[in-house]
Amino acid sequence: MKQTPSIQKHLEWKGKVETRVKAPVDTEEALALAYTPGVADVCLAIKEDINNSYLLTGRANAVAVITDGTAILGLGNIGPEAGMPVMEGKCALFKQFGGVDAIPLCLKTTDTEEIIRTIKLLEGSFGGINLEDISAPRCFEIETRLKKELDIPVFHDDQHGTAIVVGAALINALKVVGKSIENVTVVVNGAGAAGISIGKYLLKMGVKDLIFVDRFGIICEGDSFESKTHEEVSHISNKHHLKGALKDALVGADVFVGVSVGNIVTKKMVESMNDKAIVFAMANPIPEIAPDLAKEAGAAVVGTGSSKHPNQINNALVFPGLFRGALDVRASDINLEMMMAASKAIAETVPEDKLSAQYIIPKAVDKTAHENVAKAVKMAAINSGVARLIN
Amino acid sequence: MKQTPSIQKHLEWKGKVETRVKAPVDTEEALALAYTPGVADVCLAIKEDINNSYLLTGRANAVAVITDGTAILGLGNIGPEAGMPVMEGKCALFKQFGGVDAIPLCLKTTDTEEIIRTIKLLEGSFGGINLEDISAPRCFEIETRLKKELDIPVFHDDQHGTAIVVGAALINALKVVGKSIENVTVVVNGAGAAGISIGKYLLKMGVKDLIFVDRFGIICEGDSFESKTHEEVSHISNKHHLKGALKDALVGADVFVGVSVGNIVTKKMVESMNDKAIVFAMANPIPEIAPDLAKEAGAAVVGTGSSKHPNQINNALVFPGLFRGALDVRASDINLEMMMAASKAIAETVPEDKLSAQYIIPKAVDKTAHENVAKAVKMAAINSGVARLIN
Repeated sequence: MKQTPSIQKHLEWKGKVETRVKAPVDTEEALALAYTPGVADVCLAIKEDINNSYLLTGRANAVAVITDGTAILGLGNIGPEAGMPVMEGKCALFKQFGGVDAIPLCLKTTDTEEIIRTIKLLEGSFGGINLEDISAPRCFEIETRLKKELDIPVFHDDQHGTAIVVGAALINALKVVGKSIENVTVVVNGAGAAGISIGKYLLKMGVKDLIFVDRFGIICEGDSFESKTHEEVSHISNKHHLKGALKDALVGADVFVGVSVGNIVTKKMVESMNDKAIVFAMANPIPEIAPDLAKEAGAAVVGTGSSKHPNQINNALVFPGLFRGALDVRASDINLEMMMAASKAIAETVPEDKLSAQYIIPKAVDKTAHENVAKAVKMAAINSGVARLIN
Repeated sequence: MKQTPSIQKHLEWKGKVETRVKAPVDTEEALALAYTPGVADVCLAIKEDINNSYLLTGRANAVAVITDGTAILGLGNIGPEAGMPVMEGKCALFKQFGGVDAIPLCLKTTDTEEIIRTIKLLEGSFGGINLEDISAPRCFEIETRLKKELDIPVFHDDQHGTAIVVGAALINALKVVGKSIENVTVVVNGAGAAGISIGKYLLKMGVKDLIFVDRFGIICEGDSFESKTHEEVSHISNKHHLKGALKDALVGADVFVGVSVGNIVTKKMVESMNDKAIVFAMANPIPEIAPDLAKEAGAAVVGTGSSKHPNQINNALVFPGLFRGALDVRASDINLEMMMAASKAIAETVPEDKLSAQYIIPKAVDKTAHENVAKAVKMAAINSGVARLIN
């Protein structure tokens, strides 16, 4: 095994989350309450009304973080066991910033139906499901079906977590450059799960002109597509029917959103963008263009996916507070209203007087940001009618 | 909801186990080690060699406690959600007495194949599987298949946990009455998962004459059976081909083991047993015969399933230490040698000079008992060749 600092730490930790006993079971009297014979009445109370499971077990605060190991970080299909370190990391973040008891589960199958079925079978043990690092296009079908078929909120973080945090960054970046969301042209490079979801989300936030680019070039209505998803988005994007490559899409564009690969954007391309361009180069570990280069090329605001540069656009800002808010009101769904509320809450965490090109988004470890997300999401759940518990 | 003391406590606890963060994720520097970008190397190290998942994630200490909710306590098929309070209780015990991170999972299916498949899909996230409260005969098939098809230890607690603790109680009870295991006649009343497993286990421990009784009477070779399991055990039990009811089986018997229903054994039946009879009346909440009555009828040693009486025969004495020992050496299986070692360790926890008819077995909350089980099981795993890690 390589001996990187991270590997050394992981060898010490032997797991990044553990269980902790909340109910005493160390005396016979305690056991009689927490376990047999007392627990029989607790079981029967849930049998009478399944909703009591939210009051009498840990379910109300429990989220399963589930992957099949097919799209782990930028590493691709590395299998369920190898996906575990990322899932454990998310579970640690869930607890640290959301107080959520998240359980990492890595499934040994890549079959869409089998993943759906397995998660349905686990529903009764959890208050929510966080899907993670499942490759496209299966992730779309899995999330759509589970949202329909489960009674608890289902959220695919790679799609929507990323979209929400990009939305937050865009709200503040537009303030910095003094542009309005209705008037900007946005280019999304990379049309996998994250890219498609970001694009659709920005359209819902009010963007009127958005262009998707994948590795074959600009996605244009009327082209032939291998993927149903790409065909779908061709109808809602690229209203001027541009054709060509990324460099063609970027001419005159206001915003670049990259969820693709490192060093794919040149200085020249950024120079061809509109004045006061916004560049979110989020590929990891190497951004689509180095922030310094982008600045030199005239970009007014630059964000990346890395904490090494200012403005890290990190979906770790989203999921802990989002689920905290959803669980607090026992939401049946995580809907668009809740996601938009999360974007707004993240953006508003940056104080007006501190907002600048170097500071459009809070850090992922900013406790206040997570608390703000939780509050805003909770209110949005109530106002949009998916809250089942209003306290 | 009824307001019993146990329900009130459960309403306060809102879950009996929670997650705790072991790796810091509260600063950007910490995140870079525990999460992105550092975690990528950790994932790749596991991809290269799946065994590294035992070193770099929590898997080496993680056990799934899995039920389908079909045989919860004495309550029968009450469904997965209603089974959760029992699973959480076990998980609390796992941590308290074994230091094991146990995760409660309640499956929304009663289909044998689907349960097997689901658990197989979860294998990569755990170091062991504890099956719980799954009804017979499905539990036999599920455990047998999973033991064969999984690479991690699988243990059905209702069968083997109970057998191990009865074995421990019998070792010490026989010492008290001065009889030898080869010479006693044992009657097991109740031929469900627990009863069958206890009977088979006692035969392996050296009992030569054992009679199973179910609600239709004594199980006798040559009878017609609805269940394959009953047919199987008919060949290894009841060597004198007794026919009749429980009262007929008990005449002259040395040991009664009840895992059936309350008040089914009369004083007269115990009087008909051999001198210095041993009575384990473990039905819950009401034993097969009240301990006082059994004593009056001449029983020399009486044990029950309840902490209200001396000699509680509780499988909570077994699973925390058993899995602790198995996990410590990354055992591939929990085999008979390990189970026997656990029985012996529990029995030997009672000091020779304190051993008496009133004290044949340690309390479930006796820390030393759990530590002794863990040590003995670990050694047995090494000696029987199923340990994959010898430290």
